[in-house]
Amino acid sequence: MIQSFYPPQRTLMGPGPSDVSPRVLAALSRPTIGHLDPQFITLMDEIKELLQYAFKTRNELTLPVSAPGSAGMEAVFTNLLEPGDKIIVCQNGVFGGRMKENVERCGATAVMVQDDWGKPVDPQKLEHALRANPDAMAVAFVHAETSTGVRSDARHLCALAHEFDCLVIVDAVTSLAGIELRVDDWGIDAIYSGTQKCLSCVPGLSPVSFSERAVQRISQRRQRVQSWFLDMNLIMDYWGGDARRSYHHTAPVNALYALHESLVMVQEEGLEAAWARHQHHHDALAAGFSAMGLGLVVDAQARLPQLNAVEIPAGIDEALVRRQLLQAWNLEIGAGLGSLAGKVWRVGLMGHAANQTNVLLCLSALGSTLQSMGAAVKPEAAIEAAQEIYAA
Amino acid sequence: MIQSFYPPQRTLMGPGPSDVSPRVLAALSRPTIGHLDPQFITLMDEIKELLQYAFKTRNELTLPVSAPGSAGMEAVFTNLLEPGDKIIVCQNGVFGGRMKENVERCGATAVMVQDDWGKPVDPQKLEHALRANPDAMAVAFVHAETSTGVRSDARHLCALAHEFDCLVIVDAVTSLAGIELRVDDWGIDAIYSGTQKCLSCVPGLSPVSFSERAVQRISQRRQRVQSWFLDMNLIMDYWGGDARRSYHHTAPVNALYALHESLVMVQEEGLEAAWARHQHHHDALAAGFSAMGLGLVVDAQARLPQLNAVEIPAGIDEALVRRQLLQAWNLEIGAGLGSLAGKVWRVGLMGHAANQTNVLLCLSALGSTLQSMGAAVKPEAAIEAAQEIYAA
Repeated sequence: MIQSFYPPQRTLMGPGPSDVSPRVLAALSRPTIGHLDPQFITLMDEIKELLQYAFKTRNELTLPVSAPGSAGMEAVFTNLLEPGDKIIVCQNGVFGGRMKENVERCGATAVMVQDDWGKPVDPQKLEHALRANPDAMAVAFVHAETSTGVRSDARHLCALAHEFDCLVIVDAVTSLAGIELRVDDWGIDAIYSGTQKCLSCVPGLSPVSFSERAVQRISQRRQRVQSWFLDMNLIMDYWGGDARRSYHHTAPVNALYALHESLVMVQEEGLEAAWARHQHHHDALAAGFSAMGLGLVVDAQARLPQLNAVEIPAGIDEALVRRQLLQAWNLEIGAGLGSLAGKVWRVGLMGHAANQTNVLLCLSALGSTLQSMGAAVKPEAAIEAAQEIYAA
Repeated sequence: MIQSFYPPQRTLMGPGPSDVSPRVLAALSRPTIGHLDPQFITLMDEIKELLQYAFKTRNELTLPVSAPGSAGMEAVFTNLLEPGDKIIVCQNGVFGGRMKENVERCGATAVMVQDDWGKPVDPQKLEHALRANPDAMAVAFVHAETSTGVRSDARHLCALAHEFDCLVIVDAVTSLAGIELRVDDWGIDAIYSGTQKCLSCVPGLSPVSFSERAVQRISQRRQRVQSWFLDMNLIMDYWGGDARRSYHHTAPVNALYALHESLVMVQEEGLEAAWARHQHHHDALAAGFSAMGLGLVVDAQARLPQLNAVEIPAGIDEALVRRQLLQAWNLEIGAGLGSLAGKVWRVGLMGHAANQTNVLLCLSALGSTLQSMGAAVKPEAAIEAAQEIYAA
């Protein structure tokens, strides 16, 4: 007989899921109500309004897809693209590659603009690609590359794309509520995110938002969207303003309680304050890593505060370090992904997890673990450097 | 400022979500761990084993899709079908129609076998269609039609399909853990379900299972699966037996805690005992409806115990009744769907909700509400009839 499962209490400082607030966990376990209950409709309206706040948009079509971020990505591509379309995809990590996968599975063509992993998307390369491909109908890029910890200049890239009359698709899985993001001001036409990063909610939902221009394109498609489950033409009838709320699929009721609560918390703190908090704790963490003698992969001006790719000291068994952190400290940090596998750890400071306790715990745990393996690091110096930031 | 959301405590006797066990809600809110945590891998292995138990299968490819039942349906069709394929779809309610949508969006052709809503799929019609379409590669049908409350003879339909060398695809969203279902014995090749029906778990996941024959077809596809998110060739690498567990998407960790707990509860009760419990409480409910003078749409031998389509007495405003039940009794029952909209209520007795308290509550609440509106029903007779069943 299999028994009930009791998970350990971890501190989650990997690339996500991040630590979930106790308030969000409490909301998650409230009694389930029906997905057509009038009170649930109120909840949906509030979630929509809160997501508009978090995305800084007035887009009417703003809602959480009932599945993880990868499904949000697919929802965006599968609704906007039709077979034969051409789109420019900027890749500087794992998730640009996943965009290409999505584009091709829609029967469309992806013109790839490649940048090195750990570097932001180069606007000049994008401009060159836009000139060379006047038939491209959209540009897609990752705002915050979770695989490398790099931030691209979304405002600049959006402006370029619009110069060439392209729609702009943005992956904001790791950026939403962690760094500056302005959907309307920057002119983003379609955006998707995840709940398990800087929203500190449980994984499983993907907030998305579509501009008026994107909605028009979706409603005027020549072919039906290849996914029934993700077809926004149908989903709009359930999440739309219309009081009828025609049934599409059964909404993940309890997960939506949790998302609502996490968004209420963002609203309480204030979005700009949340961005600043991520930056502040990143500054302390980065000062600590530097004082310890650990390098960060990404140049300071393009670094994501919420995702820190740390270089692994020579001669260290990186998997053993992660295992020891998990076993002795109940601390999870992430491994490298793709071309950075085995070369970096990824240390997340996302949402609720971006706090002083976690920063000091990470520096102390990682420092002493590395020291015990003979690495020439200085954990005490790291703690001191971080505390100087906090004292300032 | 939007405030935290506190849902009312409903009794959920609609078509799902059904009442969730407090044990499942408690599991849901346990601390989140990483989706690559060794302890999470253990949880995944246990969920797989428990799902094999619930489906009565040894299929290696048995797992929960990280999205609601509609996505499970799409996962099955999009993985098994390729453009140009022909498949026979039996429709006797809403969900057969949704199957057709899925088939067509895969670029395949659906030969429809139509039966009246409220009637089971007619094996003779299927046999006729199989003879007329020797190039069909699969047969799909809904085991338990949630829109009408009818059970089709899955064993018989499977045997027929196999005679003609077709794969069999079964929608078990409402049947899993509520009525007899034997994936291996009946030779089902692909099946999907939902968590929010007879498993009494929260909505948002879709257990699926694929036979060896189905897996072969998936791995030998000519074209890539059109959905990256639902591509079983990729998902197998995360859920598979291989210790590597390559990352695909971030699993909905807390929802999987809940599913695990609900499956542990099924295992504790025993699957056959759970089937019998559904039947027993249905017998009491049906006796009550009958004594009250309310008709059921479905003939007794094809009735689903877990979903009862009740005829609305003449002259009654059905929406008003549902509203009053919700407001005065915190009781949710479902409206009719599709061609039965406005003609029936759908009363669910699913999983945790299939219990004596709910049966008596429903008879009492519905009976007295109808009586207050002038309908010629007898709530006292209904309670008496149900209690006779319980006393027997």
